[in-house]
Amino acid sequence: MISTRTVPAIILLCMIYLGINPCTFGQSPNKDSLMMRKIFDVALTKGSAYTNLYTLCKKAPARLSGSANAAKAVELTYGMIQLVADTAWLQETMVPHWERGEAEKSYVKLGGKKISLNICALGGSVATPEKGITADVVEVGSIDELKKLDDNQVKGKIVFINQPMDAKFIDTFHAYGGCAGIRVRGADEAAAKGAVAVVIRSLTLSNDDFPHTGVMIYKTDQKIPAAALSTNDANKLSDLLKENKDLDLYLKMNCQNFPDEKSYNVMGEIKGSVYPDEIIVIGGHLDSWDNSEGAHDDGAGCIQSIDVLHIFKELGLKPKRTIRCVMFMNEENGAKGADTYALTAKNKGEKHIVAIESDRGGFAPRGFSVEGNEPIQTQCFNKLLAWKPLFAPYLVHIFVIGGSGVDVSRLKDQNVALLGFIPDSQRYFDVHHAAADNFKNVNKRELELGSASIAALVWLFSEYGLN
Amino acid sequence: MISTRTVPAIILLCMIYLGINPCTFGQSPNKDSLMMRKIFDVALTKGSAYTNLYTLCKKAPARLSGSANAAKAVELTYGMIQLVADTAWLQETMVPHWERGEAEKSYVKLGGKKISLNICALGGSVATPEKGITADVVEVGSIDELKKLDDNQVKGKIVFINQPMDAKFIDTFHAYGGCAGIRVRGADEAAAKGAVAVVIRSLTLSNDDFPHTGVMIYKTDQKIPAAALSTNDANKLSDLLKENKDLDLYLKMNCQNFPDEKSYNVMGEIKGSVYPDEIIVIGGHLDSWDNSEGAHDDGAGCIQSIDVLHIFKELGLKPKRTIRCVMFMNEENGAKGADTYALTAKNKGEKHIVAIESDRGGFAPRGFSVEGNEPIQTQCFNKLLAWKPLFAPYLVHIFVIGGSGVDVSRLKDQNVALLGFIPDSQRYFDVHHAAADNFKNVNKRELELGSASIAALVWLFSEYGLN
Repeated sequence: MISTRTVPAIILLCMIYLGINPCTFGQSPNKDSLMMRKIFDVALTKGSAYTNLYTLCKKAPARLSGSANAAKAVELTYGMIQLVADTAWLQETMVPHWERGEAEKSYVKLGGKKISLNICALGGSVATPEKGITADVVEVGSIDELKKLDDNQVKGKIVFINQPMDAKFIDTFHAYGGCAGIRVRGADEAAAKGAVAVVIRSLTLSNDDFPHTGVMIYKTDQKIPAAALSTNDANKLSDLLKENKDLDLYLKMNCQNFPDEKSYNVMGEIKGSVYPDEIIVIGGHLDSWDNSEGAHDDGAGCIQSIDVLHIFKELGLKPKRTIRCVMFMNEENGAKGADTYALTAKNKGEKHIVAIESDRGGFAPRGFSVEGNEPIQTQCFNKLLAWKPLFAPYLVHIFVIGGSGVDVSRLKDQNVALLGFIPDSQRYFDVHHAAADNFKNVNKRELELGSASIAALVWLFSEYGLN
Repeated sequence: MISTRTVPAIILLCMIYLGINPCTFGQSPNKDSLMMRKIFDVALTKGSAYTNLYTLCKKAPARLSGSANAAKAVELTYGMIQLVADTAWLQETMVPHWERGEAEKSYVKLGGKKISLNICALGGSVATPEKGITADVVEVGSIDELKKLDDNQVKGKIVFINQPMDAKFIDTFHAYGGCAGIRVRGADEAAAKGAVAVVIRSLTLSNDDFPHTGVMIYKTDQKIPAAALSTNDANKLSDLLKENKDLDLYLKMNCQNFPDEKSYNVMGEIKGSVYPDEIIVIGGHLDSWDNSEGAHDDGAGCIQSIDVLHIFKELGLKPKRTIRCVMFMNEENGAKGADTYALTAKNKGEKHIVAIESDRGGFAPRGFSVEGNEPIQTQCFNKLLAWKPLFAPYLVHIFVIGGSGVDVSRLKDQNVALLGFIPDSQRYFDVHHAAADNFKNVNKRELELGSASIAALVWLFSEYGLN
């Protein structure tokens, strides 16, 4: 028997659970709130995300474009999406193929003793010569500082760009945005002054021993090796240089570019029951860097996209508009999959109304950002603001105009509302593009709440469209 | 040189960083926003929280009331608070002293083979007899189910309460609240029907191998041993029982109660410059369970409370009202420190206006809840709502009427506004009262953002009071 004293507490808990404000009890909760509650319930109790992510991370880690593991990831997720979509298919795309080769080596010598440094090649870099590079180091705090140096201060040396991400930004993506240039453009800037290689401080706010890779781009033919040091070793090297101006840095990298490979975007959809030609895309990217399981980046986004269809299927929901899950290949170093997807959509005359990307990790959901050509951007933003109260019980509260994602942004000129899923950003750059991006660093509930938030928004778009 | 193309982006980043809405640029940002920005900057770049927490966790883990490590924690935090407070002192309090003794053992025998189970005594439990207990098991899904059984179905058996926390609650504390009774009252309820021991499913939403302890209370003299199984082993035992109704469970526990010990609350304050008699308390609890480092529960809350004074000191802020940091002893199994604190405050005729507790982990800040006698509760809640926009740039968005914390709630009859700091709750019960509650599971930025949020609110109260 339930004691009479516990009855009010139980009623209150039930109301909280249903997202009903006890102060407005008596009003009938509307259909949208009830549907959202069902979506969250399924995600939290019968979701597919966590087990699917485990499978992807363990069976196809390090799935860089063009690799055998990327092909394995295509096969695995094609199997997963077939279980929940009306139709599933592969979309062929050519992708670059770069390999790290044997692990990098780097050290400085001090008093005859070698001090090893944790380093990794940046994606796309050329290798060092067979015997490695040994050279003096010139440390700068930014590309601007590098530009101010005379060429003879740089010529023949290794440029060390030791620019920390700014911890004061609340959204860590802003801190990343302020630093990413050293990774993408560092080699070109250093080469322009005659440097023989560039090493950067890893792009993370954490002090640890993981080197963080990521794409770099050569815009000239003067290609020099480019690598990232772990933040702890960037600090160490900087300290050593203060005491030993003439310190030599040794660097050996074995990376190599290969001819482009054939690969695939993996796709599946549930056809809309009323407006089948209006397409809502939800997606993430299937490729990952080669030094991790790619759990947060972006296994999570792919698996959440599959989970959206899974949740619809579990609930027996027939969306009015077509919901398409797209797992893009090659976001990390080319976005060739996204280019292929957008071009095909254009050529076929498909009508995309909304494209949502999940590529900021499987952390607790905080909101969504939207961008697009006007009037679509404003139109969509107003929709989001109108729906914001529906998300409040789920603690999803950020609805802003802002960047969406690399893959869906390719659809911009087709007048699509482009949305980015915003999870909590605090831990993302601890793992981003580093060996720490593995399954055990994903929290089951955070991942599932993300799935549910995305599925809820997809459901609202599928019911009400953009107009 | 900064290229002209990057200038707009830099200006935008600076505005975002300052919490200035680019759309309202031109208006002068107000003094409160600017002060909050300074507080967050200090917490994120010169905060004391992370290193202090490391020290506390590594030098005084397992600091259950009455233990040598609890005394060590008093000494350590007294040293820390002296560095940042105008005045620091210890407040004597008697506390219970319970020890787990040698690690517990539990197994079932199946086909002559022992299957070990991960188990731990609940805090306050009596031991088993020297040779342990071997008995049949009766599994129930709740205390209500147990109450419905006939006594002869329970007599001489071990009651196994296998009630999972409900994953559907978004706030995991609601799920915990719905289950905590099995831990606190399970032994009494089972003993009332003649059981020889009770084992419960650990109170966590995670499926793992950690048994989670926590306080249990005997209200009768019929004291039977009480323990918690890890969720994985609760599932395993439940599965085994389905196939083998007569399965015997072996249980050996070595815990013991000792006479009360003398201990201390650790305190320090910055005297108010205008209203020194109006006291704002910020606190956490210094004791932890004996099976972990007590990192989230509640090392984080203590260290954040110290960090509030540290941040004021770093900024050279002179609060108008007195800010007192209190690290309460014995929240986990008695709250004797809180009782002593509240009684002393009453006897001294101290005027507390606000008391804030941080005891829900060092996770990303989401908001604050408030409770108190009327009209104080409404008065304080209205203040919070007025200040809510100031917190928006820091993604702190939940301001509600609700429970505060065990320790500060002791001040309720002194007409104090009682506040609970609300961090994100998703990962809390993964580590709560279990071996996983260690320093490495605390994220530096999440911890620091919590400190900053609390310091910002303390600053607002110190400037504007409650009226």
